[in-house]
Amino acid sequence: MGEPAVGPGDVRRAAERIGPFVHRTPVMTSTALDARAGRSLYFKCENLQRAGAFKMRGAANAVWSLPAEAAARGVVTHSSGNFAQALALAARDRGIPAHLVMPRTAPAVKRAAVEGYGGVVHECEPTLAAREARAAEVEAETGAVFLHPYDHPEVIAGQGTCALELLGEVPDLDAVVAPVGGGGLLAGVSVAARSVNPGIRLFAAEPKGADDAARSLAAGRFVPQTAPQTIADGLLTSLGRLTWPILRDHLEAVITVSDEEITAAMRLVWTRMKLVIEPSAATAAAAVLSEDFRAIRGLSRVGVVLSGGNVDLDRLPW
Amino acid sequence: MGEPAVGPGDVRRAAERIGPFVHRTPVMTSTALDARAGRSLYFKCENLQRAGAFKMRGAANAVWSLPAEAAARGVVTHSSGNFAQALALAARDRGIPAHLVMPRTAPAVKRAAVEGYGGVVHECEPTLAAREARAAEVEAETGAVFLHPYDHPEVIAGQGTCALELLGEVPDLDAVVAPVGGGGLLAGVSVAARSVNPGIRLFAAEPKGADDAARSLAAGRFVPQTAPQTIADGLLTSLGRLTWPILRDHLEAVITVSDEEITAAMRLVWTRMKLVIEPSAATAAAAVLSEDFRAIRGLSRVGVVLSGGNVDLDRLPW
Repeated sequence: MGEPAVGPGDVRRAAERIGPFVHRTPVMTSTALDARAGRSLYFKCENLQRAGAFKMRGAANAVWSLPAEAAARGVVTHSSGNFAQALALAARDRGIPAHLVMPRTAPAVKRAAVEGYGGVVHECEPTLAAREARAAEVEAETGAVFLHPYDHPEVIAGQGTCALELLGEVPDLDAVVAPVGGGGLLAGVSVAARSVNPGIRLFAAEPKGADDAARSLAAGRFVPQTAPQTIADGLLTSLGRLTWPILRDHLEAVITVSDEEITAAMRLVWTRMKLVIEPSAATAAAAVLSEDFRAIRGLSRVGVVLSGGNVDLDRLPW
Repeated sequence: MGEPAVGPGDVRRAAERIGPFVHRTPVMTSTALDARAGRSLYFKCENLQRAGAFKMRGAANAVWSLPAEAAARGVVTHSSGNFAQALALAARDRGIPAHLVMPRTAPAVKRAAVEGYGGVVHECEPTLAAREARAAEVEAETGAVFLHPYDHPEVIAGQGTCALELLGEVPDLDAVVAPVGGGGLLAGVSVAARSVNPGIRLFAAEPKGADDAARSLAAGRFVPQTAPQTIADGLLTSLGRLTWPILRDHLEAVITVSDEEITAAMRLVWTRMKLVIEPSAATAAAAVLSEDFRAIRGLSRVGVVLSGGNVDLDRLPW
């Protein structure tokens, strides 16, 4: 089976490396949501992270892990949004160029943010093949180092640092729930959380319309994402070669939720917690409010990763 | 001239009294907003207060200041929204009835919140005369104690506690900016802030369409609000008999902003700080971003009170 791509030491080194370049985000609580969930919830507010999402952690770790000569040529990635913003900002922090291959259908607010951070946007068609081809071209043209948005050891390790902070602040959690798209966040969180608390239970939150993680876990083997349909635009991708084995070895279950549940949870968090979260983050809130999750025994205190807050205010889902 | 209705000791006693019943809200910062304001801003997040606004502080202080026998008969107020929610929750905390006279035009989300906290809503026509008459009726019928939403010493003292927290966390502020409607928040903040830092400069933020505080300060005498027109629905009222003299003696200036500036500031805070704030709170953000305020010298570090976050998500101003 081989060694997992990321171990506890990688996450701890990432935390030291990226400390000056990320926010230590607050953990918030809400009696209104606790009442609906039937237990105590601890929300790790990565929507308040720099660049508006947890992706800043992995991007910072990947950028600052590069040797100086390689870094000087810049970095390139393909991303529908949050990783592009994060990589642009992390590259600016280090003073190196960032090339971002983005589908021409990406939300205007995300493209504007990338350019605001000084990133160079390269447009492509909205298919995985087109994204990968364009990124390879940019890599060849510029010599920039390609950084995969989630299936990269330093990216996974960086994302895991949010769980170190969460468990540092609330040590006695019974479980952590995080959304799963490519799995970079949840793989990092899983490794980090278990390193602090070996008995902690780990759950994925996934849209019913993009449930490759649920199907992969049920089948016991990697099942690719095909034709995803969900408002959670950050969770459309397949699991990765590196993230899947980590998730397989850590997850107790994948909680799937409908777009209606995601929208309702998003409104609830906006209304009661006064936090702007994006649909991908609301997927985790919807999961802990779902009947399936409420039926699971033995979970008094649950951490929930609110993964990001980058929403186009002119295109809200209600 | 007489003694001011509220002194520093009143605010300190309020802080002790309400400690268990209010959140110590976080102070947040944003490099994006600092860049636009040209100085360092420290946002006191009363949108994250219980019941979604600073009003909880004054309501809790007024409710817990009542002798037991008077309290047992309950409390009554008239309010277009946030004070009604806060009073309902404060009364529930103490286990006493709350009667809330609300205009039939009040946002559905605010009425639902009041009822969710167990308050009894009494509808009236949306005029000040109708509100006062209906409140007097309820007072006579039930024996409940009338608590004015802002022109009441214990309410003013309670609101001031947010400034004690802000200056406790960021002691070396040059100024504090808060929105002004009836003036309860800003009067309490003024007394509290000066008691900690006698040299601190105090500014009001007010919609151009409801600028009675600006006109009062310019005239040197109380000028009532007439026919206000603004999206900042929490700032429609006239200053009070108790709040006006305190504001007159503390304010350096009133910064007035247009509804367009308020809407833009609201979007900016939602987008960059990921905080849901209501238009009244956005008025303070708009003020510190305005040309008038940016032109004022000697203000490196400015506290800004984000007063509340109770917004109807189905009726956003953009």
